[in-house]
Amino acid sequence: MTDLTPAEETLRELVAAENLEELASFIETLSPSETARCISRLTAEAQHRLFFLLSPEDAADVIEDIPEAQAADLVEDMPSEQAAAIMEELSSDHLVDVLGEINADVSQAILAKMDKEDAKEARMMLEYAPDCAGGLMISEFLVYKTDNTIQDVLDDLQANRSKYIDYHVQYFYIVNPEEKLAGVLRIHDLLFPAKETLLSQIMISKPLRVSDKASLHELENFFEEHHLFGAPVVDDGNRLVGVVLPQDIEEAVNKRKTKNFLRLSGIIGGEEFRTMPLLSRSGRRLSWLSMNIVLNIIAASVIALYQDTLAAVITLAVFLPMVSDMSGCSGNQAAAVSMRELSLGMVRPKELLWVLVKETKVGIINGLILGLLLGSVAYLWKGNPWLGVVIGGALAANTLVSVTLGGMLPLVLKRFKIDPALVSSPLLTTGTDMCGFFFVLSFAAAVLPNLKGL
Amino acid sequence: MTDLTPAEETLRELVAAENLEELASFIETLSPSETARCISRLTAEAQHRLFFLLSPEDAADVIEDIPEAQAADLVEDMPSEQAAAIMEELSSDHLVDVLGEINADVSQAILAKMDKEDAKEARMMLEYAPDCAGGLMISEFLVYKTDNTIQDVLDDLQANRSKYIDYHVQYFYIVNPEEKLAGVLRIHDLLFPAKETLLSQIMISKPLRVSDKASLHELENFFEEHHLFGAPVVDDGNRLVGVVLPQDIEEAVNKRKTKNFLRLSGIIGGEEFRTMPLLSRSGRRLSWLSMNIVLNIIAASVIALYQDTLAAVITLAVFLPMVSDMSGCSGNQAAAVSMRELSLGMVRPKELLWVLVKETKVGIINGLILGLLLGSVAYLWKGNPWLGVVIGGALAANTLVSVTLGGMLPLVLKRFKIDPALVSSPLLTTGTDMCGFFFVLSFAAAVLPNLKGL
Repeated sequence: MTDLTPAEETLRELVAAENLEELASFIETLSPSETARCISRLTAEAQHRLFFLLSPEDAADVIEDIPEAQAADLVEDMPSEQAAAIMEELSSDHLVDVLGEINADVSQAILAKMDKEDAKEARMMLEYAPDCAGGLMISEFLVYKTDNTIQDVLDDLQANRSKYIDYHVQYFYIVNPEEKLAGVLRIHDLLFPAKETLLSQIMISKPLRVSDKASLHELENFFEEHHLFGAPVVDDGNRLVGVVLPQDIEEAVNKRKTKNFLRLSGIIGGEEFRTMPLLSRSGRRLSWLSMNIVLNIIAASVIALYQDTLAAVITLAVFLPMVSDMSGCSGNQAAAVSMRELSLGMVRPKELLWVLVKETKVGIINGLILGLLLGSVAYLWKGNPWLGVVIGGALAANTLVSVTLGGMLPLVLKRFKIDPALVSSPLLTTGTDMCGFFFVLSFAAAVLPNLKGL
Repeated sequence: MTDLTPAEETLRELVAAENLEELASFIETLSPSETARCISRLTAEAQHRLFFLLSPEDAADVIEDIPEAQAADLVEDMPSEQAAAIMEELSSDHLVDVLGEINADVSQAILAKMDKEDAKEARMMLEYAPDCAGGLMISEFLVYKTDNTIQDVLDDLQANRSKYIDYHVQYFYIVNPEEKLAGVLRIHDLLFPAKETLLSQIMISKPLRVSDKASLHELENFFEEHHLFGAPVVDDGNRLVGVVLPQDIEEAVNKRKTKNFLRLSGIIGGEEFRTMPLLSRSGRRLSWLSMNIVLNIIAASVIALYQDTLAAVITLAVFLPMVSDMSGCSGNQAAAVSMRELSLGMVRPKELLWVLVKETKVGIINGLILGLLLGSVAYLWKGNPWLGVVIGGALAANTLVSVTLGGMLPLVLKRFKIDPALVSSPLLTTGTDMCGFFFVLSFAAAVLPNLKGL
């Protein structure tokens, strides 16, 4: 079906040969995207064998490298003991990401088989929405008590060197005896004072913090405003529950953008990879298309209403799709600017009037120019000035409609808490199609005697 | 035109009153997105006055908070002395981002007025492509020599505390006398050994590093593979030239996604905000639309060729836009999956055959189901089974074409180093429109006697 890359070939052979040691060291040489591709190209059976062969640590490294949707699929198919052993080796944020993607029953079964402490922590994090601070925080950070001394910290660092190797250690977080956040220390603050100094004496009290319920947008703003390398997350009682890192926030923003891009293009219900089962790919795409077919029927019914006009001037049929397509494009441009301004907070959902004024101006200019262009084409083609006026006028009018509609629709959807990425494009297309058909055909009907026989 | 928010009102008043002190402290209370919106809603003249009033430090804080396109517009309009004073206060990566967005003549003029050292550093970074390690690195990191002792480091940290406050200090980078990267130290490695220990004795030699020419995709893979909080950037001679941070890489990926989203929606040539001048907004949108109008004329010419068939069966005009729209949607779904798989490295640009096979299967299933649906609608509406067969058959055939075309097009474009986000959607729409019109009209022509009078 396709020629395998050497890496894919090697992986296939090593799995077939059940060569555990070489397998683990070979995978380590692959980049994360190569790992993801090579594994996805194995048969389902070979994938099972691969994960059966790998140690939980090595398997966890693989799981961290590949896209979440793929990781979730793999984990879902494993016996829950094996999945639990691998999950325990994941870093806390990856663990929650993967568990969040898989079927709730399966994830409960896996959690039940995990180490009690790890499972408790994971359950706590799973209770948060995945896009708020609680869902994005990590638990690999260093926390000490106000009555610890610098020497205590040094002893702990010395004793746990290997454990702390992946930890975020630019800051230390200090809590009081009730586990409430009391202060923050930068690691270089430890370098100078005497070793018996209490942390409470040198820490920065009342440090910046974020609520565990802070939204992704708030976190983005927080790190844009404060150039920190991490921020403590506290619950309503000011207890320290985790730490968020700026790179994890950016990554979450990235994921959201990917999701929006896919939704805008009609891929809904999560990511699709071509290695997923045919029927699930086909079915998810169809579910969106069937909604579209209904909208299309509604739009086309306008044409059916004017069938007599169309029969009299058959040339109009050539221009109907052009007017509706062009206006669809104009509308999508305006919608994209609105979605971008909304996501940056440069426009508020209630500022419909402001957007209307701004887009009306663009709509008039672009409508006139595009109308003039297409109208001239129509006139030159058939040599009938009335056809030029009808087509040019319809495109001008519909450009204005679609640009203003496209600009305002995302704001309206946002106000009703509907995801603009999901519905703005189908709704907009239906609207601009209907109006486009209506303008062309009603303008033509109005001057019908001048167009007859075209 | 629109009701101002209290924050916008306050900013307007403070600028009008030229109340410098309150102005600076008021802006500090705003979140970055509020700052961006409030400033964008000021008149051009008030914006000038605002930046004239603010100290370079405060102005730099504002510039770091707002979107780059907006920042670049503001800076371009300033006298170059004022711009230079502000630029000197920006962190190195923001500086390069803003200078990279503005007109080259203006940025040269600003650089000429800047502190020599800062300008030299900025020029060096501007020579790199903005999306490679050299363009993304920061210069705010700590570097020491192999023959420095721990005490030297401590003295330096003590002496430069305030300067280093925003620095990435989780790692120290160690260079040999020729400025070549020799090793890395984690800050906690300094805590334990004797103060007169040489850094070369305790550093991690041959540390992980990235080339200054490493692409964004390589950097993304690097940080996915190695969970580091920063990586040294070296030039061809292994000289240390900067440090890249994972959050900056994620941010660059974010920017690229935004650009792709906007391009896909027909916003080309950089971001558009509604506060930008009307004619530049309108002109940039038009430049893309005029290309589209040509493609639309090409597609619609297929209808012109079959005008006789259409005249004989006017009902077909109702279904032409439906078949082309539906197929356009199916094609966009497949194109989105390909773009996503390409960006993850899950598919290689040469694997056309693999994508063809995978998409053909989806195309057949979805084509049959959608064709059956729309064919039944056509049949039930007019009571003519032949109409159902023509419409259903055309949609089925065109779904197959557009799904395979949509899946393969991004791979082909990628191979020819053309940006799929920019051209795949217009090309795809033209192709699926043409085929859709052709299928409907040629199928109808083939069974014309059975359709007459519909």
